[in-house]
Amino acid sequence: MSRIDATHDPALASWVDSANAAGAEFPIQNLPFGRFRRAGSVEPLRIGVAIGDQVLDLREAREHGPWSEDIAELLLPLAQGDLNAFMARGKPARVALRAALSQALRDGSNAQSALTVCLVAQADAVMSTPCSVGDFTDFYTGIHHATAVGKLFRPDQPLMPNYKWLPIGYHGRSSSLRASGHGFVRPLGQTKSDAPEPQFGPSKRLDYELEVGALIAEGNPLGEPIAMAQAEDRWFGLVLLNDWSARDIQAWEYQPLGPFLAKNFATTLSPWVVTAEALAPFRAPFVRPAGDPQPLPYLDSAANRECGGIDITLEVWLQTQAMREQQQPAVRLMQSNFRDAYWTVAQLVAHHSSNGCNLQPGDLLGSGTQSGAAEGQGGSLLELTKGGKQPIALANGETRTFLEDGDTVILRGFCERAGQRRIGFGDCAATLLPAVTHPLSPVGS
Amino acid sequence: MSRIDATHDPALASWVDSANAAGAEFPIQNLPFGRFRRAGSVEPLRIGVAIGDQVLDLREAREHGPWSEDIAELLLPLAQGDLNAFMARGKPARVALRAALSQALRDGSNAQSALTVCLVAQADAVMSTPCSVGDFTDFYTGIHHATAVGKLFRPDQPLMPNYKWLPIGYHGRSSSLRASGHGFVRPLGQTKSDAPEPQFGPSKRLDYELEVGALIAEGNPLGEPIAMAQAEDRWFGLVLLNDWSARDIQAWEYQPLGPFLAKNFATTLSPWVVTAEALAPFRAPFVRPAGDPQPLPYLDSAANRECGGIDITLEVWLQTQAMREQQQPAVRLMQSNFRDAYWTVAQLVAHHSSNGCNLQPGDLLGSGTQSGAAEGQGGSLLELTKGGKQPIALANGETRTFLEDGDTVILRGFCERAGQRRIGFGDCAATLLPAVTHPLSPVGS
Repeated sequence: MSRIDATHDPALASWVDSANAAGAEFPIQNLPFGRFRRAGSVEPLRIGVAIGDQVLDLREAREHGPWSEDIAELLLPLAQGDLNAFMARGKPARVALRAALSQALRDGSNAQSALTVCLVAQADAVMSTPCSVGDFTDFYTGIHHATAVGKLFRPDQPLMPNYKWLPIGYHGRSSSLRASGHGFVRPLGQTKSDAPEPQFGPSKRLDYELEVGALIAEGNPLGEPIAMAQAEDRWFGLVLLNDWSARDIQAWEYQPLGPFLAKNFATTLSPWVVTAEALAPFRAPFVRPAGDPQPLPYLDSAANRECGGIDITLEVWLQTQAMREQQQPAVRLMQSNFRDAYWTVAQLVAHHSSNGCNLQPGDLLGSGTQSGAAEGQGGSLLELTKGGKQPIALANGETRTFLEDGDTVILRGFCERAGQRRIGFGDCAATLLPAVTHPLSPVGS
Repeated sequence: MSRIDATHDPALASWVDSANAAGAEFPIQNLPFGRFRRAGSVEPLRIGVAIGDQVLDLREAREHGPWSEDIAELLLPLAQGDLNAFMARGKPARVALRAALSQALRDGSNAQSALTVCLVAQADAVMSTPCSVGDFTDFYTGIHHATAVGKLFRPDQPLMPNYKWLPIGYHGRSSSLRASGHGFVRPLGQTKSDAPEPQFGPSKRLDYELEVGALIAEGNPLGEPIAMAQAEDRWFGLVLLNDWSARDIQAWEYQPLGPFLAKNFATTLSPWVVTAEALAPFRAPFVRPAGDPQPLPYLDSAANRECGGIDITLEVWLQTQAMREQQQPAVRLMQSNFRDAYWTVAQLVAHHSSNGCNLQPGDLLGSGTQSGAAEGQGGSLLELTKGGKQPIALANGETRTFLEDGDTVILRGFCERAGQRRIGFGDCAATLLPAVTHPLSPVGS
């Protein structure tokens, strides 16, 4: 588990003033990594670290900063734009670079003059996904979500018998992962109503899912599982993840092999990966409710029980096209906490590799929808509207059962604790665009 | 649809003698692509074309051969070891290079002396997967398999209502794809017997699945579906694929999101990708059985009905450790034909992208298990042994319900038609190694 060190000192301030503002997402205690290019540029993606409302360009920083030889070597793959290669270096590299960046960016650092020219305003940066994702796995750790959705289909047995014994997961699609800010078109697909034949056309039940994504640091060779004792150190950091879902396509296609076209048309990631180290002050006990089975030994460790959880407030916000046109801000639809996940990130890593499956640096593990226990804490519209039966009312008089064209959904996440600086994730936002016409094959082609 | 041209002439012979042998897998009419390095070498992978028992090294061939400027340009990514970049060039590039290679390798070619030094014996080449696979999707087009497996779980309704309306598919794992020849360890996992609690340990019901895999050529931008009229030209070629499956892990984990750890510990590919052009003489009508629904318009075209199918004989062979020790050859367990798939490759491409999901060059689409209609034509042990209840007898007196350590499973595939040269796929083989001990987390870690 990551230790608290000098980089976590809540009294630390940065010479980048905006990082010191109350409630800033990216204070010097955070230092998340992202990939960007300057607006209007077509050059290869660069790696940056967010600080206040700025990005420290690590390519420029490596050239201009006063780094030790060791740190300059760690910065090399980052200066080359390859976050995956840095991820593969594992936790010691991450901890060492964090200490050096914290030193260089803090008030009074002698690096200030050299690094000031390496800053890019976030407003001038176009962000990409934080790394190259080889394989994307989506889990189902939100027990309140699984229960609520299960009730819609199986009132008597909302949770499958396996749910409390193993982290349910399935493979997602990597090619359609996009960073916050990329709109996507409403998908077409087959759906089935009460009519005898299915139909093909735009999805009418388009939904979001509020998730957290973990990115893998060091991988494992094929055939060599990662034990719980190592699993905690094998994830690099977390992002927010919107697992857009077409409920009508899903209902028709998912038996017996699971969701496919209902999910793989787009998945949105927040652009900044908040490292395991930045999250260290916000760890929480992993406690199973009384009466629930304890994890089998390969999914259990004392450290995991002690602080396998992570206390992250999660929120979904919605700005409809009407709100945008009337210059009204987004409205918050719900709030939950990642602490309530039924399985910890370390357990996901250990389970995923328990059969010998090889995880690789940059691989993405989604948490599944993180709903809270209470009414109104659903992490998807499917839950908030009781399967589309009870529209929710928005502040401006509009209602929603599922998403409408022009809707922008924004996921937000942050860590807050008394005596700690707030650690933010940045927005994970995307706008639903109207469906395109399908290029049907001409007759006789 | 690929046209028959001079490269398909069954009378064509090569100056590489072994290509002309009766029943050779790789005659001059085939010309499949693969990635290899010379045995003992650690240099980057090279691209080669199989001809008889040799590999034409395309890096050497580009340097030494008498190519036109156009062909030399097409050979550039191949000389650099990047089959994906060549795949992205699409069908015109494939057709042009095939014509040039056919000219250069045929009897009497003036390229013989220059290219002879570019040959590597296949016995001296270590093969890799044919390309880099970004995303792997596995479909379920074998209706006889789906019916047989469905019967084990749902005697009354073996096929789900959606089966005949859309190609069922799910996402697989790319990181654990390996080329023929790579052994893999028996996976550990959670299984559930009649005991109240699940267990963790080596799978006891390990199985193979006989599949065909299609590799994507040109991709499509996110949000832009590929119509049936274009879909046939968007796949590069086919490989054999063994979708190893741990049935006991699968039975416990797969509800409600589909197979996960039961599949992702290993998937084996044949090393040579047989191009769509090489398969052109073996196309077959795509005919729906009387009474079955016709495909919806987005999955239909006249060309697909006319010749969307592909006539490929598929076989599973088994060599147990005892057979190997007694120097007995592998025995054939079954035979089926890819022509019987319920959906064509073009339909898989069109369906997969119908929601806007972006396919990328080198992406892999598995066909699902290709079983025949008759008893004894099951493409997995699950089918041949009726769910593990009726062991099959092997020629040497051994029996099998599921695989045992040391078993080598070999998939074979070939096209044969009167008046045509045989087109082979090469072996897709791998050996099951004993389970490793799981590194359980020490108490108190």
